[in-house]
Amino acid sequence: MKGLFYPRTPTGKASIVPPVPWHYSGELLTFEYRADVRAVAALLPSGFGLADEEPGAVAAIWAEWQSCSDSFEEILDPVRGQYKEMFLVVRCKFQGRPYSRCVFIWVDKEFALLRGQHQGYPKKLGSIQMSRPVLVGKGGPKLEPGGRFGATLAAFDRRLAQASFTVRSACDRPGFVNALPMAHNRWMPAIETDGSDSLDEVVTMSGYGLERGRCFTGDFELEYFDSPVEELMSLAPREKIAAYWHEVGVSWRAGRTLSRRNLPEL
Amino acid sequence: MKGLFYPRTPTGKASIVPPVPWHYSGELLTFEYRADVRAVAALLPSGFGLADEEPGAVAAIWAEWQSCSDSFEEILDPVRGQYKEMFLVVRCKFQGRPYSRCVFIWVDKEFALLRGQHQGYPKKLGSIQMSRPVLVGKGGPKLEPGGRFGATLAAFDRRLAQASFTVRSACDRPGFVNALPMAHNRWMPAIETDGSDSLDEVVTMSGYGLERGRCFTGDFELEYFDSPVEELMSLAPREKIAAYWHEVGVSWRAGRTLSRRNLPEL
Amino acid sequence: MKGLFYPRTPTGKASIVPPVPWHYSGELLTFEYRADVRAVAALLPSGFGLADEEPGAVAAIWAEWQSCSDSFEEILDPVRGQYKEMFLVVRCKFQGRPYSRCVFIWVDKEFALLRGQHQGYPKKLGSIQMSRPVLVGKGGPKLEPGGRFGATLAAFDRRLAQASFTVRSACDRPGFVNALPMAHNRWMPAIETDGSDSLDEVVTMSGYGLERGRCFTGDFELEYFDSPVEELMSLAPREKIAAYWHEVGVSWRAGRTLSRRNLPEL
Amino acid sequence: MKGLFYPRTPTGKASIVPPVPWHYSGELLTFEYRADVRAVAALLPSGFGLADEEPGAVAAIWAEWQSCSDSFEEILDPVRGQYKEMFLVVRCKFQGRPYSRCVFIWVDKEFALLRGQHQGYPKKLGSIQMSRPVLVGKGGPKLEPGGRFGATLAAFDRRLAQASFTVRSACDRPGFVNALPMAHNRWMPAIETDGSDSLDEVVTMSGYGLERGRCFTGDFELEYFDSPVEELMSLAPREKIAAYWHEVGVSWRAGRTLSRRNLPEL
Repeated sequence: MKGLFYPRTPTGKASIVPPVPWHYSGELLTFEYRADVRAVAALLPSGFGLADEEPGAVAAIWAEWQSCSDSFEEILDPVRGQYKEMFLVVRCKFQGRPYSRCVFIWVDKEFALLRGQHQGYPKKLGSIQMSRPVLVGKGGPKLEPGGRFGATLAAFDRRLAQASFTVRSACDRPGFVNALPMAHNRWMPAIETDGSDSLDEVVTMSGYGLERGRCFTGDFELEYFDSPVEELMSLAPREKIAAYWHEVGVSWRAGRTLSRRNLPEL
Repeated sequence: MKGLFYPRTPTGKASIVPPVPWHYSGELLTFEYRADVRAVAALLPSGFGLADEEPGAVAAIWAEWQSCSDSFEEILDPVRGQYKEMFLVVRCKFQGRPYSRCVFIWVDKEFALLRGQHQGYPKKLGSIQMSRPVLVGKGGPKLEPGGRFGATLAAFDRRLAQASFTVRSACDRPGFVNALPMAHNRWMPAIETDGSDSLDEVVTMSGYGLERGRCFTGDFELEYFDSPVEELMSLAPREKIAAYWHEVGVSWRAGRTLSRRNLPEL
Repeated sequence: MKGLFYPRTPTGKASIVPPVPWHYSGELLTFEYRADVRAVAALLPSGFGLADEEPGAVAAIWAEWQSCSDSFEEILDPVRGQYKEMFLVVRCKFQGRPYSRCVFIWVDKEFALLRGQHQGYPKKLGSIQMSRPVLVGKGGPKLEPGGRFGATLAAFDRRLAQASFTVRSACDRPGFVNALPMAHNRWMPAIETDGSDSLDEVVTMSGYGLERGRCFTGDFELEYFDSPVEELMSLAPREKIAAYWHEVGVSWRAGRTLSRRNLPEL
Repeated sequence: MKGLFYPRTPTGKASIVPPVPWHYSGELLTFEYRADVRAVAALLPSGFGLADEEPGAVAAIWAEWQSCSDSFEEILDPVRGQYKEMFLVVRCKFQGRPYSRCVFIWVDKEFALLRGQHQGYPKKLGSIQMSRPVLVGKGGPKLEPGGRFGATLAAFDRRLAQASFTVRSACDRPGFVNALPMAHNRWMPAIETDGSDSLDEVVTMSGYGLERGRCFTGDFELEYFDSPVEELMSLAPREKIAAYWHEVGVSWRAGRTLSRRNLPEL
């Protein structure tokens, strides 16, 4: 049976996720700020600790991606490759090393949701919106001082976050919060639903072939809104650090398991 | 950390799936037919065999669900509880016992997709459409002889299936293909993406508190359409068995693991 | 060239709206209350006045429809016939007679949006959600005392309204606010966009073949939320009147023009 | 009462379309070809004739727009300004002058649909997908020789069109079919639905402030698929002319009425 993910079939053609590697090209808006460090700590599971430096730093990131497999066929059928996401990243420590960690994330396509689950990203579906830079006309922002971008997130018919970014100047690097290898938990509750996990891993990963494109820093506003099924408010900004619009190209093939605990074999 | 599924947090409020039990009320259109038995066999993974009786039987099922947790709050915020699904079920044998098994399935909400993954349903997102019975007016079909229902499935902007059902008479039971306990694989590829699986289980489950409502049988048409990322065509109908419109109420709390293979602990 | 609405073609096959008559079967939640009568008056255009009785009464209505043309083919391709809507109705007086009038309305399909424009309903697109009654299971409300329904409205990724309804008892009639013939304006600004209207009519209409199904009254909660592009807040409930869950079947063929003002012919 | 379009209110805040002017910035894929000239003629209403030159030429255009009003606030809330469209343009003659004319068009937002109706574009809703050029990474096409773009259209859960474009070289102009002022009919059937039109105009319009950005020509494939509610097949490509990826910035304020026929005033 072939297929990285389900459904597995003799050909693998119907697999919800194509074989690795996966290639990504995207435009991102990154908002870095300091939140209540206790709220960050409360989101770290057993075995994880706060980062030694900037333990309360958070990056709220909006991204518009095109992605494809090594067949590149998704580029010609873009409904199968384009998606947007919004995610919150904190920094942490595991087994004595510093990592970045995604604590909340929304995407707008199923293949991105499942691909993320493979990687330990806790993906939900949402409506992610962000301005795109324009070269001509007045319908969008320009990547020049004063250019203004907007970004919003909604899920289950409620607005969860909105942000604006005003370009100040070109810069070299889009921040530090999301710059470390990721450390994520992969959990799957046992079908007995008795509190035990059939899958209980900590994994780490990084992309390869990273290319950075244009990068601009600027001023920003960012606010979250409450929902009965979200917990963003505890991570609300207390002190701004910096914001960026930037381009990234990257590929992904595999990660590495840092810890694994099993239930007994049957 | 609380939360059946990710993201796990101190309160569990943001978990993509509420705690079990889950309650379901739905209307279903079930189309039972015989397909090429070799195509059914080809979709059964290692350890599974064809059913002794009716090994080539398939049920194509459209369902419109309302679902909720024990808090019942999803009923008051129906965007969090209503969803539709279309799925194909075959029969099979595992460890000497007969089971039903879902080989392909599409839903239109994220919580249904992830809940299904917990249960081993290979859920994708799609657009699922089906007529609803009406008591007054001419805008929809009536549950009386001659009433005609339509049902369609699409994903990635391609129509994948369409069916029609014409009521003939009331009946007792909505078919046999999906009537056994389910046997599903739960797989999660290792983050090393080296062909090994961190999670490799066969699980079985049934609902509880089953209530059957109205049930009608009738004539039907069913056809599938091809897609670069689906494999429905091999399961196309060769011989019709029967079709049903029916109502179901059921709850779900847990399943049972039939087999589990582990990778080494770290 | 054939086709009620655009695009008009030699066959009319591609018309965004099929030929009349149109048939509807639906389930509705109607919430009747009194708002600030000055807010109702402010939404009545020139030539219209407040109703003599209950001039501040508003009906907020959620409806889930199936609709079709006289070919009934939409019933077999339900994506072309099913839609939901939420609308606010007030009462008013025109040319000395009392009418009902829709002041705000959202639907979730394009054919409903354009059909409504033909009829003078000021339709926008939105996400409309409402519970459906169930006969079996615990996944939805039952049409019996204590059964609880929810209903929500969102547009542009913001929640605009939410309501709940608790069944008290069966009843005969689902309220009075939306019970009169409708009086609507049909406006199309001149392409010169100079403040003049190429189309400036007041029309009235009623359905035919009305069938009422089950009808229940009960208690309710209803609240609106603000948006930069909506004006619901001024019509917020001040005093509740009554709420209903009810079924309707109705057909529509034509209306009648009550007034028409033209720009010069060219 | 304020508001260009409905609903008209004392403030105009809730109008489905903001006041003119409207500003647009977009990326377009234009596919020009010759179709059966009789099929083009069949789509021209009374008073229109075939163009003297290239009467069978068609442009199939995919566009991804950002748009805003003079307040520019839609740029900061991009769900209210971003949309995609796919449309087919032919050339024609009216009152002795040559015009471009949109015969079929799909958009994915309501404000674009209604704005288009004001302008005589026969807009429906659809799912429009197109590759975006990238500067870094392998997830999308680059604007350099060999870069490959895909574009698709679907409506009512059926794929209607798909195309691919391969960059050959930079060029000056993105074709000729859509280069003339537009001539469109604006029709609104009388509410009596008796075959007469309350609004019956031919209008022309052009944008202002046109800025052209990058422009590339290349090779292409384009195919249409049938649907029970579309008429694309008669306009299928018979002979390719040329294809382009290009950027446009443009604003729009008003058009001019070329002919108007009225029903009697009441």
